[in-house]
Amino acid sequence: MTVGPRPDAAWRTRPERPRLAVIGLGYWGPKIARNIQELECGELAAVCDTREASLADVARRYPAARATLSVEDILDDPTIDAVVLATPIGTHYALADAALRADKHVFVEKPLAASSVESGRLMELAAARDLVLMPGHTFLYSPPVLMIRDLIASGELGDIYFVSMSRVNLGLHQSDVSVAWDLGPHDFSILRFWLGETPESISALSRACVIPDMPDVAFINMEFPSQTIAHVELSWLAPSKLRRTTIVGASKMVVYDDTSTEPVRIFDSGVSFPNPESFGEFRLSYRTGDIVSPPVSASEPLRAEMEDFCRAVSTGSTPVSSAALGHEVVRMIESTDLSLARQGARVEVDSDDPSLVATN
Amino acid sequence: MTVGPRPDAAWRTRPERPRLAVIGLGYWGPKIARNIQELECGELAAVCDTREASLADVARRYPAARATLSVEDILDDPTIDAVVLATPIGTHYALADAALRADKHVFVEKPLAASSVESGRLMELAAARDLVLMPGHTFLYSPPVLMIRDLIASGELGDIYFVSMSRVNLGLHQSDVSVAWDLGPHDFSILRFWLGETPESISALSRACVIPDMPDVAFINMEFPSQTIAHVELSWLAPSKLRRTTIVGASKMVVYDDTSTEPVRIFDSGVSFPNPESFGEFRLSYRTGDIVSPPVSASEPLRAEMEDFCRAVSTGSTPVSSAALGHEVVRMIESTDLSLARQGARVEVDSDDPSLVATN
Amino acid sequence: MTVGPRPDAAWRTRPERPRLAVIGLGYWGPKIARNIQELECGELAAVCDTREASLADVARRYPAARATLSVEDILDDPTIDAVVLATPIGTHYALADAALRADKHVFVEKPLAASSVESGRLMELAAARDLVLMPGHTFLYSPPVLMIRDLIASGELGDIYFVSMSRVNLGLHQSDVSVAWDLGPHDFSILRFWLGETPESISALSRACVIPDMPDVAFINMEFPSQTIAHVELSWLAPSKLRRTTIVGASKMVVYDDTSTEPVRIFDSGVSFPNPESFGEFRLSYRTGDIVSPPVSASEPLRAEMEDFCRAVSTGSTPVSSAALGHEVVRMIESTDLSLARQGARVEVDSDDPSLVATN
Amino acid sequence: MTVGPRPDAAWRTRPERPRLAVIGLGYWGPKIARNIQELECGELAAVCDTREASLADVARRYPAARATLSVEDILDDPTIDAVVLATPIGTHYALADAALRADKHVFVEKPLAASSVESGRLMELAAARDLVLMPGHTFLYSPPVLMIRDLIASGELGDIYFVSMSRVNLGLHQSDVSVAWDLGPHDFSILRFWLGETPESISALSRACVIPDMPDVAFINMEFPSQTIAHVELSWLAPSKLRRTTIVGASKMVVYDDTSTEPVRIFDSGVSFPNPESFGEFRLSYRTGDIVSPPVSASEPLRAEMEDFCRAVSTGSTPVSSAALGHEVVRMIESTDLSLARQGARVEVDSDDPSLVATN
Repeated sequence: MTVGPRPDAAWRTRPERPRLAVIGLGYWGPKIARNIQELECGELAAVCDTREASLADVARRYPAARATLSVEDILDDPTIDAVVLATPIGTHYALADAALRADKHVFVEKPLAASSVESGRLMELAAARDLVLMPGHTFLYSPPVLMIRDLIASGELGDIYFVSMSRVNLGLHQSDVSVAWDLGPHDFSILRFWLGETPESISALSRACVIPDMPDVAFINMEFPSQTIAHVELSWLAPSKLRRTTIVGASKMVVYDDTSTEPVRIFDSGVSFPNPESFGEFRLSYRTGDIVSPPVSASEPLRAEMEDFCRAVSTGSTPVSSAALGHEVVRMIESTDLSLARQGARVEVDSDDPSLVATN
Repeated sequence: MTVGPRPDAAWRTRPERPRLAVIGLGYWGPKIARNIQELECGELAAVCDTREASLADVARRYPAARATLSVEDILDDPTIDAVVLATPIGTHYALADAALRADKHVFVEKPLAASSVESGRLMELAAARDLVLMPGHTFLYSPPVLMIRDLIASGELGDIYFVSMSRVNLGLHQSDVSVAWDLGPHDFSILRFWLGETPESISALSRACVIPDMPDVAFINMEFPSQTIAHVELSWLAPSKLRRTTIVGASKMVVYDDTSTEPVRIFDSGVSFPNPESFGEFRLSYRTGDIVSPPVSASEPLRAEMEDFCRAVSTGSTPVSSAALGHEVVRMIESTDLSLARQGARVEVDSDDPSLVATN
Repeated sequence: MTVGPRPDAAWRTRPERPRLAVIGLGYWGPKIARNIQELECGELAAVCDTREASLADVARRYPAARATLSVEDILDDPTIDAVVLATPIGTHYALADAALRADKHVFVEKPLAASSVESGRLMELAAARDLVLMPGHTFLYSPPVLMIRDLIASGELGDIYFVSMSRVNLGLHQSDVSVAWDLGPHDFSILRFWLGETPESISALSRACVIPDMPDVAFINMEFPSQTIAHVELSWLAPSKLRRTTIVGASKMVVYDDTSTEPVRIFDSGVSFPNPESFGEFRLSYRTGDIVSPPVSASEPLRAEMEDFCRAVSTGSTPVSSAALGHEVVRMIESTDLSLARQGARVEVDSDDPSLVATN
Repeated sequence: MTVGPRPDAAWRTRPERPRLAVIGLGYWGPKIARNIQELECGELAAVCDTREASLADVARRYPAARATLSVEDILDDPTIDAVVLATPIGTHYALADAALRADKHVFVEKPLAASSVESGRLMELAAARDLVLMPGHTFLYSPPVLMIRDLIASGELGDIYFVSMSRVNLGLHQSDVSVAWDLGPHDFSILRFWLGETPESISALSRACVIPDMPDVAFINMEFPSQTIAHVELSWLAPSKLRRTTIVGASKMVVYDDTSTEPVRIFDSGVSFPNPESFGEFRLSYRTGDIVSPPVSASEPLRAEMEDFCRAVSTGSTPVSSAALGHEVVRMIESTDLSLARQGARVEVDSDDPSLVATN
């Protein structure tokens, strides 16, 4: 499985219809396998899990795909172009590193790695070998998230004053990662995607309510270079499922609720100074106009995500969920953890140096 | 108006039906006057505002009450037992101090004062003169808030893991105080009332979106001695009015929404370890039981608040919205401000010393 | 009080600022008195109730208005231009008849009278004496109802296929009239106003659940000449208050909910035949576009209604809530009653003859 | 395929694990096949459709099942115990008749047949041959519907005053049946199941808005022998999906909303006469108590329905969705149609004679 550097990476031939192997058949793996199976642009070549029962269960559904208990089988198979890693976070780095060295393009379920040092090294390795490295930030392919990105990018909302996000429900507690590592990648990747920037500072408060040392609720504050601020509430303890994001812009405001039949609502509301000269008199004018719920496509984000991966493998394009974005997300989670370790201190997310520096 | 100390304060006679004067006839003053007018336990003796038009407008409705442009008229009137201050925050200390020195019981619209030094001095003065000093934290008389206090105190919710509060709507920007001083007293007083404790640390993030140097959105994190944590979101910029508070306890959870026809909803939901011995195997059990919306009394909080003030004046009882609680609320706002001044640093709310000390 | 015909009615002088008397000080009377008191275009001249306590309570608030226990005092007072009748339905005809004969313009709380014979006679009398006769269909002055009338009239909704209305809540049972007479006038007047036509047939089902012979729930079906159909559900027995009306047009649909912060929601949804020639193949296309909640004015309908009455008295204009419309509403309720008496039979609402004829 | 009478039907052996054939592979057929495939109590023996493409698509998923274009193949196969008919309504009678004559137990997608004459004959034939005949009223296996049946049966709601049901959404227009035949079986079967009685009279109003002579909206009123009344609103034209049923009982009320995360809400609300002796004074007391949303099982109704069919075949038990209930549902739809044909006249649903008699 050890594979030396390929100086001729630029010569790498690009498969028209990549053959993909799914490694890890827990919760996400089977979903991804099903989506790949239905793709036109790619092919399910193999499925792999070290647990016999999990493997057998999935393998039965895809008789044409190779089924194996051994990752090495996958990496040594020259007919396989790319691997999808749907394994626990702690294994991402070692598996992705091995796959890249075996000349496989790599898709990694979010988050990209367990630290920014790891994600940074994977990015370098993928770049050096001209291979695709893509984290699975599925929400970036969700129609409401894309619609709001367009609303922000077009300037329709005006400057973004602040964003407030809640992602809470009852369960499921993870045994290996905190709520910030489990749920944070969703909101952090969305913020990075919408705002096009990484926060310059983060401070957070959390509590391990049920399992000692395993935070299951977190309140995270962020400041961005553009002066936008954001709050993210994450929890595995909540009376009911809540997926509510409010974006307040200078011109319009948006409520995004993934659980609603109207996931995007645009409020033509705001505040203005009608008489700038009379500022001393403090006369603000509040505007409350139409509220519009545009129709939102019902397309399947996971399908679009796998298509974007195949396209990147086939054409060399950069996927929307890029390694660079995934790396930034890891840095945001890391800064959250550092703030927690420092009892909620404000942490600067230094954008040049992956090692973090606290300011207080 | 200068009045010397009264060593015989303990001899102070307690009026059976106190005569009250309302000072400040802007937004709250007329509402309070109307409520006093309808009381059995107290009497509207006078109304006062330095603006002739405001005074005339209110005075017309209460021909039996004395109307005056001069606060001194009120303080010098020996038939007046107590004053209600519904004036801007910046005037609270001077007016309350003068009123106490004039032997008047004092009700002050929230917050009690513009700093904890001020509120501390007012408390001392009131105690020395055996006079009632009461801040107007009206929510402590609101039926849903009282119901939830009982749910917490009875242990029905179990240990309180965390509280998350949102109080946002479009406007009204204040010209003299930040959103934390304007809206914060509501949620801070409710938290102090429910939990019976003051946070030991606060960190906050805010932004002045519309008016320079006047924060109109704030995200505030708090840690309490009992390990409960809380988040409070306050804003004058929001697509729609939101008054949503979630209380997550070890046994049950509650959603409190002041804008709903079902303001209190109790969720018999939670998580437990069915097999404590098999902790290593990580088997949590999630329980989702009944959701109950109990009927909530429609009684008027402002009325109950003024009755509590009259009772305190008549009998010497301590009102639910006590000066001590109001002082703690001022300290919480002050710590929020200090965190903001230190760019979101975590600030310890030292409970012994009113001067604040940051930890980072 | 007996007053002969006035052949010179056309010479009737029109008061610039009519002086109004409110007769009947139960639930609505005091509300109307308060609104008149705040009018610029009219004046509260007198209040009248045969119950001393009710009269005293209201009279105290309006020291400038004449207070009397006797309706004759009002009718004999030449300084009074118009009367507002807020009395039980059974008294409407006699009081309105007497007032018209005393040369007073008359506003009658809805419904206009207890039968179409009565309302027809009142209309004739008012016309003969050139006096205003106006029923109090307040909803015709409600901003959402006016907005939807404009949407229909402008053709934006297309042909109106059907309307479905629910007006239900727990209580209050009336002792003298059925739910159809109590709540029906609201929805019937709105339908008449929106559609500009009276139904040609009505069938209804009701039940007296709580009080014998006093129906407290009714399901009413209507067919209009334009082919629009409508259903109206009325009830004093319901788990929660519901005020939900759906208007389905060929081009757009509207949901009107008087209890919501977004009372009017416009759905750009519909169905069409993309290939008319291939009708045999039955290919319908469903369109689901934007949902828009326009801002709705918060103006007070009762105020606008009283202003319309004053305008009619001063200028001779026809009020939006006209006697003709009120007469049609009475005929709709009457037809509902007749259908109920005939065990739900379909009843034709003959538009020429006030005596009703059943078709089955 | 012609099969004579079996005088020895009572000797019919009952298969322990019936082998089932699904006939008709449009919308419902494949769903049913998937559910049968996952059953323990039955086996998917065959799939059948006259359209090659539909057959091939489903057959591929079930290699162990026989696939055929011919219904006769199924009926002639002695290893097949029972057939599931998921074909257009117009074919139900002929196919079910043939299957019963071929000694197959029969499950028919709702409604049981296109007329009560047909459904009556099928019932007789099935009884004569000791075979199961079961209509597919899936909602009778839905956890919220079962929970409400228990609430009614236990007396917790008290006497049922009335039921109001709305089942509306945009599309899908059917080409062969009206909205009453398409959506009516859901609500009619639920009403029959909950109340245990068939309405004694029905009147209805409908309109064919989009396709000539194909009603796509209907308002249906019903009276039951127990005096309960009901209204059912059905439509393929609506701004948004609505599945709202209100049950008003003398003791409690229930709202059932199939689209909500809280599908059953129980309102401890009602009205009573506190002083029966003072009835003349008309003093009603309204009670508004707890609102409870009990947890509702997430079990799959279609699965439970197929299990009930297998149980009936294996043991001779009567399924919850019995032929007798399905026959009553057909009679309710037929009476609706008759009322529509008679322009909304009230139609008596004579319970002895399947030919309908109108009363007006």
